[in-house]
Amino acid sequence: MKKLDNIKRVLIANRGEIAIRAIRAIRELGGESIAVYSEADRDSMHVRLADYSICIGKAPSDKSYLNIPSILSAIEISYADAVYPGYGFLAENANFAAILEKSNIKFIGPRSETIRLTGDKAEARKAAEEAGVPIIPGSPPVETLKDALEIADRIGYPVLLKAAAGGGGRGMRVAHSPQELSRLLPVAQREAEANFGDSRVYIEKFIVNPKHIEIQILADEHGNVVYIGDRECSIQRRHQKLLEESPSPFITDDVRKKMGEAAVRFAKHVGFTGAGTVEFIVDEDMNFYFIEMNGRIQVEHPVSEMTSNIDLVAWQLLIADGKEIDFKQKEIKNNGHAIEFRINAEDPETFTPNPGKIEDLYLPGGYGVRVDTHIYKGYTVPPYYDSLIAKVIVHGKDREEAVIRGKRALTEFFIKGIKTTKDFHLKILEDEEFLSGKYTTSLVDKKYLGIKE
Amino acid sequence: MKKLDNIKRVLIANRGEIAIRAIRAIRELGGESIAVYSEADRDSMHVRLADYSICIGKAPSDKSYLNIPSILSAIEISYADAVYPGYGFLAENANFAAILEKSNIKFIGPRSETIRLTGDKAEARKAAEEAGVPIIPGSPPVETLKDALEIADRIGYPVLLKAAAGGGGRGMRVAHSPQELSRLLPVAQREAEANFGDSRVYIEKFIVNPKHIEIQILADEHGNVVYIGDRECSIQRRHQKLLEESPSPFITDDVRKKMGEAAVRFAKHVGFTGAGTVEFIVDEDMNFYFIEMNGRIQVEHPVSEMTSNIDLVAWQLLIADGKEIDFKQKEIKNNGHAIEFRINAEDPETFTPNPGKIEDLYLPGGYGVRVDTHIYKGYTVPPYYDSLIAKVIVHGKDREEAVIRGKRALTEFFIKGIKTTKDFHLKILEDEEFLSGKYTTSLVDKKYLGIKE
Repeated sequence: MKKLDNIKRVLIANRGEIAIRAIRAIRELGGESIAVYSEADRDSMHVRLADYSICIGKAPSDKSYLNIPSILSAIEISYADAVYPGYGFLAENANFAAILEKSNIKFIGPRSETIRLTGDKAEARKAAEEAGVPIIPGSPPVETLKDALEIADRIGYPVLLKAAAGGGGRGMRVAHSPQELSRLLPVAQREAEANFGDSRVYIEKFIVNPKHIEIQILADEHGNVVYIGDRECSIQRRHQKLLEESPSPFITDDVRKKMGEAAVRFAKHVGFTGAGTVEFIVDEDMNFYFIEMNGRIQVEHPVSEMTSNIDLVAWQLLIADGKEIDFKQKEIKNNGHAIEFRINAEDPETFTPNPGKIEDLYLPGGYGVRVDTHIYKGYTVPPYYDSLIAKVIVHGKDREEAVIRGKRALTEFFIKGIKTTKDFHLKILEDEEFLSGKYTTSLVDKKYLGIKE
Repeated sequence: MKKLDNIKRVLIANRGEIAIRAIRAIRELGGESIAVYSEADRDSMHVRLADYSICIGKAPSDKSYLNIPSILSAIEISYADAVYPGYGFLAENANFAAILEKSNIKFIGPRSETIRLTGDKAEARKAAEEAGVPIIPGSPPVETLKDALEIADRIGYPVLLKAAAGGGGRGMRVAHSPQELSRLLPVAQREAEANFGDSRVYIEKFIVNPKHIEIQILADEHGNVVYIGDRECSIQRRHQKLLEESPSPFITDDVRKKMGEAAVRFAKHVGFTGAGTVEFIVDEDMNFYFIEMNGRIQVEHPVSEMTSNIDLVAWQLLIADGKEIDFKQKEIKNNGHAIEFRINAEDPETFTPNPGKIEDLYLPGGYGVRVDTHIYKGYTVPPYYDSLIAKVIVHGKDREEAVIRGKRALTEFFIKGIKTTKDFHLKILEDEEFLSGKYTTSLVDKKYLGIKE
């Protein structure tokens, strides 16, 4: 096993299960770990498991986990020489990364300029185009109906009308024909004006029955970039992933390879280093379109670890330490099928957060089951943070076996005191659309929450 | 994934972690599980996880887990159609298996006549010889010094003198030359007479620096027999295994293959069906000698599961259900390296049992770590049973990585209220002889317990 040579002490600027994930990898690579925690997280398991721990402030994240000066102080007093950002919080904050670069503290992730580039949607889209990675055909904001009709004709119906200043799905309209476009453009423009004070509208190809499939990338500082399989993440509630699996049951190996190669091209083009994920929308004909790149570890990384036998978090650290990736693309084998269930402290019907004390707990285990979590019996889930409390990951020799093992593991999972999304997952595992492998990102919203697009 | 078609309800005639292991496999194969428990095991996790549970008596095992009439009653009232015996208790009781055969209840293991044969040392040794499997060269009891010298000359020095009526290592003497043999034979005969009332003495080849290495076998009812890698089990305290690893770091792949083929020959010769283990003594020159076959699951089976990706307990059930093994010998691949640490409720220095209440508990987890256990925070380890309370199994891409991961997992393992063997394992993981991979069965006794052979 490789060892850290340059990095000695890693401060983990995060909490919960991902902090524990990092502590484990740091320890196995011979480094020391420093946990930071808010006052509300004093009893968190990541504090107990780390080699050292430092309180960095009060509970709302802006006073602690998002407070850059507090974290810089913690780095200083702990003599940390590297920072592991995890996901969320400061993981994609180019400013934070830039400060560390200037202070000669290793940010375990891409360089700040790469974070800045991939974080800018327009820049990222441009980079994808330059790298020959398919993007969703679209236009700059249109002014007149004539322009709109011409563009729609070129990219093909149905098209999506999006407020240029909008976001989060608000103000979007779908037009299936020139007639409908003529009718909807003024409506969309008026709505955009009313909602965002800016009447400009983009036109974009509307992807029918979209799936969200992403490619895991590792890129070292010596120019080696590999893709480590794909993850199917279409089980979402209002764009929040709930369940992920690898490999996608939908795409063919040929498409998988093309997506992997496209992701590598993109990563190379933007000079990416570290572990990252290139996200794609895939349509019903398996055409794929770049959405964005996340230059950090993803919540769902364990499904890739279980199918590839590659320790992604260890590789994040090793790459930051200057090591070269010691395996070739063709040596990366996909082994079986893995599914991750996000166990959130939420009502499984309404997804309302449900923090509180865990009075009793039994975590599943055994053959083919991994649980990444920071909870324990007696722990109180604080109300201040993301509601993810555990990830149950199962592995089987094929998808059918993974589904069966998932049911078994979830059935075994016992928690008293708070509601969790466990029962939601058990429903999904019986859902015919899910089992068919052809589900799209609208499955949960439409079927289980009655939400229309 | 295959399903159980003939077996519907499995009564698990066992307790602790192996009962939970069985419950998980039964559930994944679509069967129902029935736990039995003694009054002392009322709060045991296997009772909570099973589909049904039945109390079968009081705590000492002869009143419950070893009480055949109680178990037969539990089978009757639960309408179980099969019995999973686990290890220990009735797992190798030919009489129990025979009763079930007569009652048309499937015993999940070999046929009673095979259990009888493999359970008889002389019969098993004879079968091994017939199957062309090397056995330790030896003699029938000798009467005269002349006979003794002739036999020793034939099998080669050093030789071991063993009381014919002895057992457990008592009354054994090693002779390195004819002179020593001449001097020791009368001594051994007198001791044998004094200790066992029988002066007869066997002569056997003395294996220098022996290692205990075993081969995992699966055999179905259609004549297919495969071997699933080997396990190195030489870390023992007074013949009790403490740590096991797969593959053995000592033998070459060529020897591994020969041992595997020998184990298959033996299993075929005795008409074995189910999951079994053929145990060998291996000398410093990698010569291997049959010791015995255990026709049941072994405590250490998970190391083989982690390196082969074959679910051994599921296959025990499937074979009993009449299914055919659906993979070939050449398709069985060894993937990385696995180590199992037996966590016993014992003082790590003296190995004195240390039952009691578990006041606090954190079980290790994450990438490459599996824990099979029945304990939980608040559970009281009863004093009546084997002291095994958990198995920590780690997997790495090579032995070095598995050792590092083992250290990490054991360091993370936190238990308050009772002493465990965790610290013993941490010492072994730093032991140079262990790390060299060339350790023998005497390592622990000699180095850590000051016990002489």
